[in-house]
Amino acid sequence: MRITYQELFDTLYRVLLKVGFENENARLCARLFTETTCDGVYSHGLNRFPRFLRMIENGSIDIHAEPEPVASFGGLERWDGRRGAGNVNAYKSMERAFALALNNGIGCVGLSNTNHWMRGGSYGWQVADKGMIGICWTNTLPNLPPWGASDARLGNNPLVVAVPRKEGHVVLDMAISQFSFGALDAYKKRGEQLPVDGGFDTNGNLTRNAAEIEKTGRVLPIGYWKGSGLSMVLDMMAALLAGGLATHQIPPDPELETGISQTFIAMNLPELDPDNMAERLVNQIVENLKSSTSEGGHVRYPGEKTLETRRENMEKGIPINEDVWKEVRLRL
Amino acid sequence: MRITYQELFDTLYRVLLKVGFENENARLCARLFTETTCDGVYSHGLNRFPRFLRMIENGSIDIHAEPEPVASFGGLERWDGRRGAGNVNAYKSMERAFALALNNGIGCVGLSNTNHWMRGGSYGWQVADKGMIGICWTNTLPNLPPWGASDARLGNNPLVVAVPRKEGHVVLDMAISQFSFGALDAYKKRGEQLPVDGGFDTNGNLTRNAAEIEKTGRVLPIGYWKGSGLSMVLDMMAALLAGGLATHQIPPDPELETGISQTFIAMNLPELDPDNMAERLVNQIVENLKSSTSEGGHVRYPGEKTLETRRENMEKGIPINEDVWKEVRLRL
Repeated sequence: MRITYQELFDTLYRVLLKVGFENENARLCARLFTETTCDGVYSHGLNRFPRFLRMIENGSIDIHAEPEPVASFGGLERWDGRRGAGNVNAYKSMERAFALALNNGIGCVGLSNTNHWMRGGSYGWQVADKGMIGICWTNTLPNLPPWGASDARLGNNPLVVAVPRKEGHVVLDMAISQFSFGALDAYKKRGEQLPVDGGFDTNGNLTRNAAEIEKTGRVLPIGYWKGSGLSMVLDMMAALLAGGLATHQIPPDPELETGISQTFIAMNLPELDPDNMAERLVNQIVENLKSSTSEGGHVRYPGEKTLETRRENMEKGIPINEDVWKEVRLRL
Repeated sequence: MRITYQELFDTLYRVLLKVGFENENARLCARLFTETTCDGVYSHGLNRFPRFLRMIENGSIDIHAEPEPVASFGGLERWDGRRGAGNVNAYKSMERAFALALNNGIGCVGLSNTNHWMRGGSYGWQVADKGMIGICWTNTLPNLPPWGASDARLGNNPLVVAVPRKEGHVVLDMAISQFSFGALDAYKKRGEQLPVDGGFDTNGNLTRNAAEIEKTGRVLPIGYWKGSGLSMVLDMMAALLAGGLATHQIPPDPELETGISQTFIAMNLPELDPDNMAERLVNQIVENLKSSTSEGGHVRYPGEKTLETRRENMEKGIPINEDVWKEVRLRL
């Protein structure tokens, strides 16, 4: 079943108002969930909405909270997210980083005490739409064993990098785990092997068997020891810049994951490059990549698939899970 | 054979003076090569010095060049490296990012037209020594096939993240390829299998056989498609912020690799955190990691091994390759 962007937005917006959101935040939150679904990141769009509502009910998310400034020094600021809705807080923090970059060339906001930002890429598209380069990352609850260990001490700490481009921004949005738990589950249900090793089996060997990895919880960081180190420094920077919690201090239950730390950086490329020489070079880089000698299909740049899905879903309607849709509509 | 830090430094310094370096740059360049060797990164220390001299002789490196400011906007600046010595240019750029962060909270320098920075970690240790968080990356000549392709269109674009810590900074210094060509060569010569897949064999299958990977040149990016995307956006940001060349514009011959682009970011943590609450949290994160349930040996944090090697080499002397040492001393 497919529904229009407008129908999805209206429904989520009305539910959020009913739950008690203030009007502007309800609009923003509904828009972010709708765009995420429309862009094909279903796991963090509509399908995540019921859990989002449960986390309002269990007290993890305070829908009345607004982020508050804590410390400021030039282009670098600390904000307290006061456990507000994660996507609303993240959007406002990237807006603030953008405003700082307007005046300082580069702006950085450390956000403490916030909630899951849903699709991290949203804040990359947001800042690239304004012509700036953006980088942001978040820490998470512990869900990733360090390389060489078997217990989840690190987070999968998604990292987003966005580069503006007229024909479609380049937006990298990647968790530091090789596969998400959602992806592992999908492979398991389809009875398919992962395309590459995704974790360890019960004998401690690397495996492409998603069911085995789910049993051990030993998912792989990208690049083994390299991703393990990257996850750790992302956590450190997120927590230190925000003055917030680090991964090991965040409740390990996904329905209670709150108080996380995030970093938002915006870089004012247009000021450095008033003649927009960047546009030509970015297109050259993309074209060079796409002309690689590839084995079946062309090589994609980060964000390309998102844009295709967005166009298709705007045209044909957004595919939705009917059970989730029913559940959400019951809240109207 | 081991020699003292002082002997290594003095020799490199005298050779650089003889080659024509101005005194201050000779001292800085010799110090960076010596520290890199002392820290155990032999591939980019003394062992790299002969190639460095050859690249002065072949005109890739201009030893008389000083970086020049090109554009400035608040905490964001562009500098032209004028094809000066790569490690000297990088050090000066991180110094500049640090100075910008002193006034702006966060500072970012885009450096164009420079040369290989040798060990990227050097500039992480440099900024962490001043109590700031540092991030820097570089693009390189094309040496890494994008995921799904067989020809090297991307660079391995090393990324460095440094977090200050009294007991020893946390410094991640990683190329985006899973193994360096130097590492592949070492495994091949020892006749050992790689610990994990490192690239593709001549049949197009993933392999741990370093000799096969050397034949195809198809090394793996960390995290497959993820590292492929990360490498691309690092190249874009490096080139755009610097107004410099992207990977596909850089000569693909390692002895002629010049005109590369780099980014240096410093973040003034002490201003945000005057009571140094960060120190306790960073130590907790490190301790939490090290108390993981591990299989043989403890889990290391990024930078830990560097510090151990540094201490050992300062005490016992720095191990050197005698052939290289002879070659360098012939220049005295």
